[in-house]
Amino acid sequence: MTHSPDASVTVLGLGAMGRALASAFVHAGLSTTVWNRSVGKDTELVDAGAQRATTVADAAATGGLVIVCLLNHASIHEVLDPAAHELRGRAVVNLTSTTPEEARELAAWAADHGIDYLDGGIMATPDMIGGPHASILYSGSTHVFEEHRQTLELLGTAEYFGDDAGLAALCDFALLAGMYIMFAGFYHGAAMVRSAGMSAKDFAGRAEAWLTTVAGSFAEHAVRMDSGDYSTSDEQTLVFTKSAVDAIVRASRDGGVAPHVIGPVKALVDQQVADGHGMEAFERIYEGLITGQESDR
Amino acid sequence: MTHSPDASVTVLGLGAMGRALASAFVHAGLSTTVWNRSVGKDTELVDAGAQRATTVADAAATGGLVIVCLLNHASIHEVLDPAAHELRGRAVVNLTSTTPEEARELAAWAADHGIDYLDGGIMATPDMIGGPHASILYSGSTHVFEEHRQTLELLGTAEYFGDDAGLAALCDFALLAGMYIMFAGFYHGAAMVRSAGMSAKDFAGRAEAWLTTVAGSFAEHAVRMDSGDYSTSDEQTLVFTKSAVDAIVRASRDGGVAPHVIGPVKALVDQQVADGHGMEAFERIYEGLITGQESDR
Ligand SMILES: NC(=O)c1ccc[n+]([C@@H]2O[C@H](COP(=O)([O-])OP(=O)(O)OC[C@H]3O[C@@H](n4cnc5c(N)ncnc54)[C@H](OP(=O)(O)O)[C@@H]3O)[C@@H](O)[C@H]2O)c1
Ligand SMILES: NC(=O)c1ccc[n+]([C@@H]2O[C@H](COP(=O)([O-])OP(=O)(O)OC[C@H]3O[C@@H](n4cnc5c(N)ncnc54)[C@H](OP(=O)(O)O)[C@@H]3O)[C@@H](O)[C@H]2O)c1
Repeated sequence: MTHSPDASVTVLGLGAMGRALASAFVHAGLSTTVWNRSVGKDTELVDAGAQRATTVADAAATGGLVIVCLLNHASIHEVLDPAAHELRGRAVVNLTSTTPEEARELAAWAADHGIDYLDGGIMATPDMIGGPHASILYSGSTHVFEEHRQTLELLGTAEYFGDDAGLAALCDFALLAGMYIMFAGFYHGAAMVRSAGMSAKDFAGRAEAWLTTVAGSFAEHAVRMDSGDYSTSDEQTLVFTKSAVDAIVRASRDGGVAPHVIGPVKALVDQQVADGHGMEAFERIYEGLITGQESDR
Repeated sequence: MTHSPDASVTVLGLGAMGRALASAFVHAGLSTTVWNRSVGKDTELVDAGAQRATTVADAAATGGLVIVCLLNHASIHEVLDPAAHELRGRAVVNLTSTTPEEARELAAWAADHGIDYLDGGIMATPDMIGGPHASILYSGSTHVFEEHRQTLELLGTAEYFGDDAGLAALCDFALLAGMYIMFAGFYHGAAMVRSAGMSAKDFAGRAEAWLTTVAGSFAEHAVRMDSGDYSTSDEQTLVFTKSAVDAIVRASRDGGVAPHVIGPVKALVDQQVADGHGMEAFERIYEGLITGQESDR
């Protein structure tokens, strides 16, 4: 179901990301109202055609879709709580990064105040907003997502995960976890080659090409991860991996690189081998990450 | 400088990788001699036109380029030491994975025996050999690389790093370290979304797209890593990252995911912030990996 973009949209929070979001709306020709706690961040947006609101209540009263992009969970309550009355019956899309539990708390708060709440996780930096590589994950109110989808697509590819408001944040965080860990892996490799005089710049090109190539195997790994059957007929067993990872740890030490990040990977491999899974596939270390102690929801 | 491919080549070691290497040579029409410790692994190759040698000395005596692809450093000495006499004056390319120190030891051993030694690190799985994504890093004898480059290119893109025989292995290991760590990051993310019922298969597609996109920023990170100047004017400071990583650690715990891999990344970030670098760029955690205690060569 597609709709024409909303006549009007309000953006609360004009940090680097909020400005990028508001700018995408202004440039798409939407009537855009902007608000920020401290003054001065809206100058370019107002010059480009946005309306300045001096209070959150005023901003909320304009009647369109409300986009929230603040610092964190606490700042959202600071900004929205006093305006809860004006927001009753309205659609609020929160693009501030929060944990899944925090997103669920906000959804419950919104429901208590008659506010229709959609949560989102932005998989992009501000300069990517509105471009082909920006992707935003949503979960929470189906109604808000369907009604405003075309507006949301102005920011980046919009994907809906279901009515649990915590799901988008969970997937967002899972992808960010993968990213921070990958960056740490790149730094580890760069530190290794540095010991022989290779620049990080030189290594970066190689690492980008190599990691992009091998990321193509995630889907294959996933088959075993989903089935829990790690049997393998090829040579990439845990025993094979152990010998490679052990050698990498030795070479890291030789090169003056601390094992902070590779060490835990070695420990996960060693644990699987010690538990008798040496002839199974490497991706079995995934099982070593699952504690199964989920918090009570 | 290019040459026509060698008339003949010998492959010692017919594991999964050795067979793929030999097969690429056979299919390119080179006269290919093969040897393996245990019998039976050469059947398909001989059917396709390879010559079987029953001893290493016989295999070495055919006179062409010698490619070695065995299990590890120890197995290379077991195989080559008894044939050192036959190998005198010959070009040997070792594609067995070894540490940089082991590669240097082999180069020294080869020099002592009048053997021209080139070391290589294969950035590919056996099925990729000869295809567009296979890349092999070389270092050691310039002469062997230049003389046999066209033959080596039959296996994958050939790149030469210099005459220190340990360099290719170091870069190989650095890329593999990045790969294993990235895989662990993918598993961590998959474990997080699993707690909400998302399959690893579903997550794999998203993770591949996201990590491929953000790997595009390695070159930008490298500028700061090479200069040691981590000052930044954008919002991705260590303080900003700390709040994101801390939230990811909390959400991981909520989702029943052990912090084995994300924990050390958090520790690296915390250390930089504690050391007073909170307003500098995230990639400063690279400095936390460098111990500077290089082994004596
Ligand atoms: N930047 C990115 O690459 C990126 C990517 C994905 C997601 N995100 C998420 O998007 C959100 C915004 O990020 P950003 O880069 O725009 O951050 P930012 O530049 O630091 O901006 C933070 C914004 O929050 C406001 N704020 C903070 N505390 C407040 C409070 N107590 N009351 C009212 N307003 C408050 C700030 O207002 P003042 O101007 O008054 O300080 C500012 O508008 C964050 O949750 C971030 O995790 C960012
Ligand atoms: N497979 C990959 O994806 C890949 C990728 C990059 C690099 N590599 C490297 O390539 C090398 C070979 O890997 P692979 O996958 O072919 O391993 P593999 O299938 O396990 O084969 C090992 C080979 O080494 C031989 N060997 C082991 N110990 C020996 C000894 N003491 N004396 C003589 N021969 C011995 C084996 O002979 P038998 O048949 O008699 O046991 C077999 O031919 C390794 O260093 C590996 O790290 C592999």
